[in-house]
Amino acid sequence: MQRYALTVDKFLDHAAKWHGTSHVVSAGSGAEADRITYRQLHARCRLVSGAMLDQGLGPGDRVATLAWNTEDHLTLYYAAMGVGLVCHTLNPRLSVAHLAEMVNEAQDRWIAVGAGLQTLAGELLVACPSLDTVILLDAQTPEKNVQDRARRWSLEDLLRLFGRAAPWGEFDEEAPAGLCYTSGTVGKPRGVIYTHRSNYLHTLRALQADAVALSAEDTVLVAVPMFHANGWGFPFAAPAAGANMVLPGRSTEPPHLCELIAAERVTVAAAVQTVWLGLVEHLERTGGELPTLRRIIIGGSHCPEALLRRIEERLDVRVQTSWGMTELSPLGTIEPANVPPRPGSRMSGRAPMGLDMKLVDDDGVALPEQRMRIGRLMVKGASVAERYFNQSEPVLDAEGYLDTGDLALIDEAGYLSITGRTKDLIKSGGEWINPREVEDIVGSLPEVGLVAVVGRPHEKWGERPVLIVEPRSGHEVDGERLLAVLRGKVPDWWLPDQIVLIDKMPLAATGKIDKKSLRAQFAAG
Amino acid sequence: MQRYALTVDKFLDHAAKWHGTSHVVSAGSGAEADRITYRQLHARCRLVSGAMLDQGLGPGDRVATLAWNTEDHLTLYYAAMGVGLVCHTLNPRLSVAHLAEMVNEAQDRWIAVGAGLQTLAGELLVACPSLDTVILLDAQTPEKNVQDRARRWSLEDLLRLFGRAAPWGEFDEEAPAGLCYTSGTVGKPRGVIYTHRSNYLHTLRALQADAVALSAEDTVLVAVPMFHANGWGFPFAAPAAGANMVLPGRSTEPPHLCELIAAERVTVAAAVQTVWLGLVEHLERTGGELPTLRRIIIGGSHCPEALLRRIEERLDVRVQTSWGMTELSPLGTIEPANVPPRPGSRMSGRAPMGLDMKLVDDDGVALPEQRMRIGRLMVKGASVAERYFNQSEPVLDAEGYLDTGDLALIDEAGYLSITGRTKDLIKSGGEWINPREVEDIVGSLPEVGLVAVVGRPHEKWGERPVLIVEPRSGHEVDGERLLAVLRGKVPDWWLPDQIVLIDKMPLAATGKIDKKSLRAQFAAG
Repeated sequence: MQRYALTVDKFLDHAAKWHGTSHVVSAGSGAEADRITYRQLHARCRLVSGAMLDQGLGPGDRVATLAWNTEDHLTLYYAAMGVGLVCHTLNPRLSVAHLAEMVNEAQDRWIAVGAGLQTLAGELLVACPSLDTVILLDAQTPEKNVQDRARRWSLEDLLRLFGRAAPWGEFDEEAPAGLCYTSGTVGKPRGVIYTHRSNYLHTLRALQADAVALSAEDTVLVAVPMFHANGWGFPFAAPAAGANMVLPGRSTEPPHLCELIAAERVTVAAAVQTVWLGLVEHLERTGGELPTLRRIIIGGSHCPEALLRRIEERLDVRVQTSWGMTELSPLGTIEPANVPPRPGSRMSGRAPMGLDMKLVDDDGVALPEQRMRIGRLMVKGASVAERYFNQSEPVLDAEGYLDTGDLALIDEAGYLSITGRTKDLIKSGGEWINPREVEDIVGSLPEVGLVAVVGRPHEKWGERPVLIVEPRSGHEVDGERLLAVLRGKVPDWWLPDQIVLIDKMPLAATGKIDKKSLRAQFAAG
Repeated sequence: MQRYALTVDKFLDHAAKWHGTSHVVSAGSGAEADRITYRQLHARCRLVSGAMLDQGLGPGDRVATLAWNTEDHLTLYYAAMGVGLVCHTLNPRLSVAHLAEMVNEAQDRWIAVGAGLQTLAGELLVACPSLDTVILLDAQTPEKNVQDRARRWSLEDLLRLFGRAAPWGEFDEEAPAGLCYTSGTVGKPRGVIYTHRSNYLHTLRALQADAVALSAEDTVLVAVPMFHANGWGFPFAAPAAGANMVLPGRSTEPPHLCELIAAERVTVAAAVQTVWLGLVEHLERTGGELPTLRRIIIGGSHCPEALLRRIEERLDVRVQTSWGMTELSPLGTIEPANVPPRPGSRMSGRAPMGLDMKLVDDDGVALPEQRMRIGRLMVKGASVAERYFNQSEPVLDAEGYLDTGDLALIDEAGYLSITGRTKDLIKSGGEWINPREVEDIVGSLPEVGLVAVVGRPHEKWGERPVLIVEPRSGHEVDGERLLAVLRGKVPDWWLPDQIVLIDKMPLAATGKIDKKSLRAQFAAG
């Protein structure tokens, strides 16, 4: 059989050749949506590739992007990866200190900066000596009074001055293509290097009929940030399938998304549950309809079944829940597109072909019974990290599995349910308390907004749980009532020793509750 | 990213683990359909693997199968491939001489023999010294009076005597998995070695939502022979998707297929067009309905649009036409499952992600305009042959493309249409007839001057051969005698439908017989 390297440039080659008039819509900066066909995008990306090579970048060099979901960001993805550069996506919602740590570890040389992010980029330049070039995306011009050592071009100027169609591919499929850091809610952020092979195989895996299942007839709204684990893989999957892609820019505000969905006749859309909740509430107020929308893919965190049904009923769509991780490129499991939902257990779906999973005990030994038992979830596959960036040691067990850090249960039909994080578990008197179960019960009460349970060191028991609640606005929370609700539903020794009411739950940049900060604040007592 | 070998044993591992109660139905031999779950099949295959290793086979050794579509044939596929043996599928409809040539070139060691094929296998054993073991499939017992040097076990006896669950995988993804010969050759048959990697990637490619798109909700009838290019890949794709599989045994007779489709609630079915024509005509006579059937995949030869519509209307299904080759594992292009058919041009569909195509001129130079021009079709991909078995030289052009031997046109929307063949083969009922062989036999008769065989379009079979003879001067040619001479030397279905005697064979400028002119003259009937 032929030697045929699995490299991601082939996705845009394919789209340009076989779906050349399908398009990418970018509502990034201006009021009007930009539109570019795959054929045009392909030509443009190859010109940027040539400029990058001519201006001093070479295979393996890292190009940082600090940007929203726009055509220019997508251009940077393919321009870099197509010639063997590594696209390092940065989350603009992180602090300068966090970002600088990542840029310095990665030794990024160029940084591409999206709309409204020049100030942040300027601060990064100060802290990151490896950066020598700034590319301004989204039709920006340099802000006044910028005086630093970096070269600075708008993307259009770079194209105009140095654009040259560089040949793509022709490197090993194991070459690095992307770099993304984990959110770091439980410690130091760690980088994951995606290879061309891992991204290519992730894409084919996602395109299976029972998974993400994009078609050339689809128009897909990518409302998950492109700096989050390859934007869940959509920047690869959409051109590979020949689907139109809609990039909403920075905003995921409901009116903006509704307008885009309606105007572009979006059929499939992906975002975290909070985005959909906002959109549904907006439509409930305004009475609008989105008749073209057929499917919604939700990931990022567990979505309560009541909310799923509310989304499905209001939008008349099929929701596919999913579970993934930065380390998984990121798709782990997903509710199958063609299988009717299982009422009463809308969990994280099943593993499409290409990922192995097992549940192990605290000693790393596989549970003898893998169904209807909770264990530590271990995964293995061609798109699963072997080690973290800059680490020489793999983080795999003897059978080659990665520890996800999640506790999970798999039901008889093979559906996965994440039941907690191993790092969040509280060990009291030698026994485990699962904060997630307590949080789910308390979180379902109408007066409760956000809720978290963390462990506090305890002389006698090792650790004891503390319950932290942010009341829903306009509501009062009564600690005694919370305890009364919990009693009988969890063991008595799981009941929190203390209940703390706070005005504002600390959130990490990804939007998840920042338990690290809660522990620092409340674990001392 | 992890090292994760793309090997086909993972498909059945996946099915056993995540779709363990989905099943394979085999209507092979008896009146009643056998049924086995993927979990059971997985266990059974691993036991056969162990027996094969213990009885002397080792990695890379070739196991021939001479069998129909049955559970036991599928068992041999996975039992062999799972431990690095090569499954060499033989077409029982070929002559002993043809088959022996293949077995001898492949140096097959074992041969697995399906129902009703013991006599043919016995003849092969005489001609093929490398064969030392016969495995009888489909609940057969050895025929009486078999006296030869081979060891002979039924599959059940092999399991009972030597079954041992062997570990699977753990070899390189480039290891050979299968061997299949192109049956319609000009001259010597040529073998194609499929690797684990090529089969794995072919499977993911086929499972895309716009391609074969199997779901865990599907039950797929595989009425294309498993000895034809991996049975179009279904033995891999069905377990990978968790779809139920229905194997019809030897018969593709309409009543048999209708019964299976109805009883097993088949949703997707694959076979050559003649099978579907027969089935539609049967239903038109009997008035039956097949309400569960949703999609039909047709391949093997061009299907006239009127027939497509007739099938779609009578069965109330979507037909997906396709084009493929043994050298392509075999899927090349397919009508997208989710895109409405294009009335007036139901061609061979489009290339799903993973195959590159180009049209070249007679000198191998890419046509400057690749759309709406006829050219020689060249292909490139991870599941495309690089060279033929036992050949040291690749058969690729400088850019790594394989010459398909087909002439093709690609329309503006990227749909492929095969417009002719660079060779003059005749395709009848999805099988190739090699005119050259018939011409050689007839041409050797003393009364025959010049001879040519050309294809005439045929509603049921696609094409049927016409034999054109210019008698040697002073001799008389008797059509019945020609047929008598051919009988036994070529398969019966190769016998020409019509024999035409002409005074003067048309010759081209080069002195060769002008087949184009003959087709123009005689193809109409």
